[in-house]
Amino acid sequence: MSVFITQDTPVSDAVLNVIAHLPTPSLAATVSPAFFQKLSDADFMRMAVLLAQKGYDEGGCPIGGVVVDNVSRQILGKGHNTLVQENHPYNHGETSAIRDAGRIDFSKTTIFTTLSPCDVCATLIYMRQFARVVVGNVTSASGNEDLIRSKGIEVDILEDPVGIDLYSKYRSEKPEQDIEDWKGLAALHK
Amino acid sequence: MSVFITQDTPVSDAVLNVIAHLPTPSLAATVSPAFFQKLSDADFMRMAVLLAQKGYDEGGCPIGGVVVDNVSRQILGKGHNTLVQENHPYNHGETSAIRDAGRIDFSKTTIFTTLSPCDVCATLIYMRQFARVVVGNVTSASGNEDLIRSKGIEVDILEDPVGIDLYSKYRSEKPEQDIEDWKGLAALHK
Repeated sequence: MSVFITQDTPVSDAVLNVIAHLPTPSLAATVSPAFFQKLSDADFMRMAVLLAQKGYDEGGCPIGGVVVDNVSRQILGKGHNTLVQENHPYNHGETSAIRDAGRIDFSKTTIFTTLSPCDVCATLIYMRQFARVVVGNVTSASGNEDLIRSKGIEVDILEDPVGIDLYSKYRSEKPEQDIEDWKGLAALHK
Repeated sequence: MSVFITQDTPVSDAVLNVIAHLPTPSLAATVSPAFFQKLSDADFMRMAVLLAQKGYDEGGCPIGGVVVDNVSRQILGKGHNTLVQENHPYNHGETSAIRDAGRIDFSKTTIFTTLSPCDVCATLIYMRQFARVVVGNVTSASGNEDLIRSKGIEVDILEDPVGIDLYSKYRSEKPEQDIEDWKGLAALHK
């Protein structure tokens, strides 16, 4: 059976959204490897934003992440924050995508994240020795880019205005959920 | 229906092992709250070691964790490393127990861990503002106790010789799995 998304499929938010919603193990049966090879960094970041949108639509925190092989440009892992959906106190955009990727050699990969990494995600990124991190929003939060760079990891800022607007809207709608996600319930109870 | 494990049940490794294996949400229907109130810190650490033993028996890394309410002494979360079992690149003893606990206020809790926390777990412990950490093995690994203390969290060392022996045995049997668990596959490929 031939795959539905081929080298000739035009890149659009609609097709990136299908890929965002497909389980990672299903991509081999549904998308041509050649399609991924034509995607730009901005396209992968937009896919991470579409994962953030999925999280927002589920009532969660709109933060997404995608792990990509540096040579083949295939997606190895992806996901979004599931604080609300999984009752999960630290499944952020990055931890979610890394969990999805499983036991792989992350030193051959790039992680795209829609928001500047928190301390836990920044630490996981350097402990798993990623080659590169691309950050889609340092307008709403920032701080750990220099820490990650100090560990020898390339950090690029590639802001996505759709993702920044989505996060701003969410933060104004659910400020307490935003605080819990960053600092835990203890920060709200003080 | 009355619970099977009551205030009068003697504390033994056998009964702690039943509790270690029961899903956390099942404890309310199976164990009297009064039983937990008589458990010492060393008993909770032994339960974490029994979780580590469960992980070892499954072919995984023998590291366990238990999150306990500081007042009621009830178990709020527990788990063990699942690098192998869940193909999970950072589900350590601590991250596993914290995931199991879900969205709670960790500032009212203590986490018992059978092994000195790695950078990611230490960071998660201070970001979620635990009141106290009890570490069961600083003989095989250590380093982050001072970092955690510097964030205002109480750290106690309460070494469990059974857990230390188990970890030493595992490390000599599977040195590459041990390195992957700490540093990722990248460290093995270099």
